[in-house]
Amino acid sequence: MTAYSPRLGRLIEALRRLPGVGPKSAQRMALHLLQRDREGAEYLARALGEALSGIERCPRTRMFCEPAHCGFCSASRAKAGQLCVVENPADLIAIENSTPYRGRYFVLGGRLSPLDGIGPEALGLDLLAEQLADGTVQELIIATNPTVEGEATAHYIAELARARNVKVTRIAHGVPMGGELEYVDGGTLSHAFAGRQLL
Amino acid sequence: MTAYSPRLGRLIEALRRLPGVGPKSAQRMALHLLQRDREGAEYLARALGEALSGIERCPRTRMFCEPAHCGFCSASRAKAGQLCVVENPADLIAIENSTPYRGRYFVLGGRLSPLDGIGPEALGLDLLAEQLADGTVQELIIATNPTVEGEATAHYIAELARARNVKVTRIAHGVPMGGELEYVDGGTLSHAFAGRQLL
Repeated sequence: MTAYSPRLGRLIEALRRLPGVGPKSAQRMALHLLQRDREGAEYLARALGEALSGIERCPRTRMFCEPAHCGFCSASRAKAGQLCVVENPADLIAIENSTPYRGRYFVLGGRLSPLDGIGPEALGLDLLAEQLADGTVQELIIATNPTVEGEATAHYIAELARARNVKVTRIAHGVPMGGELEYVDGGTLSHAFAGRQLL
Repeated sequence: MTAYSPRLGRLIEALRRLPGVGPKSAQRMALHLLQRDREGAEYLARALGEALSGIERCPRTRMFCEPAHCGFCSASRAKAGQLCVVENPADLIAIENSTPYRGRYFVLGGRLSPLDGIGPEALGLDLLAEQLADGTVQELIIATNPTVEGEATAHYIAELARARNVKVTRIAHGVPMGGELEYVDGGTLSHAFAGRQLL
């Protein structure tokens, strides 16, 4: 027998669908909302509804956007002639928040992984190829993650761009800023050494 | 400038009102719901709405309950003649889930703390006194937390019960099961030693 009433049980179950939330945290969140922040619960319910009804995938960048306010397709961004390819929306947000880059983006929504059935179509690479072919892109910046699949995806996309005479660059990988050589893993250090640059 | 569109920004802000959720987790949750679990987002919005409209505080136990389904006020629970006082709804749920106790409860919703302006009225102690006076309670079990304020609250409630000739008990405090004496704090160990029982 559980001590939860039906609606409380359902609220806890619903909160558990959030990533990183287990049964204890979900119970704590539900009781907190009911006990101390009913207004917050209303706000959250409303924000979820608004997000579901108003946020779509942009057909061009494949980022989440609101039709009336897509900040990533603007003419000023297109003018730069640069297109940055990332795996996920969170990667786009990280780049936008930490770098001065203000060109266009393309969100793959994953990486090539034939074993999981994720091929070029699932990542919208036909759409990317079209954009590379229309002559507006001078530089394609590949910012996929430096994992095995991310590297394979980067290689595949680089071939797409070269076939259309677009310059391709890849963000640098090496020792992270503030890191200490002693504690950096061997693969990263070897990569950083091989990729040394003239000062 | 932030990379969030207005609705995405509001969803992240709303998720941050959940306890233990910072800006990074809130962003992760929002993107997860939009990207991989729109159904879960709908379910959560619905569950929040249902909880807000259907969950009330029981006027008798002060626990969250649904008028059509209050599991804590039933006649069978009243028959036991026992009333357990806890600080918070989460404490009630913990007792209900881990112990065979199936008597009645009273949820204070806090503890006496004059400095924060929390007096007997805020904890509903007048309501508790009424229930103690109506002759249905043979034993009052005090399960407030063993903190300074929790102990003070327990003391105050014990006086209330004694004045109405109701037997008062307090849940045992001592070395936790599976704990090792070596690592238990001094206060707990001293309490456990003083409270030794005949085998």
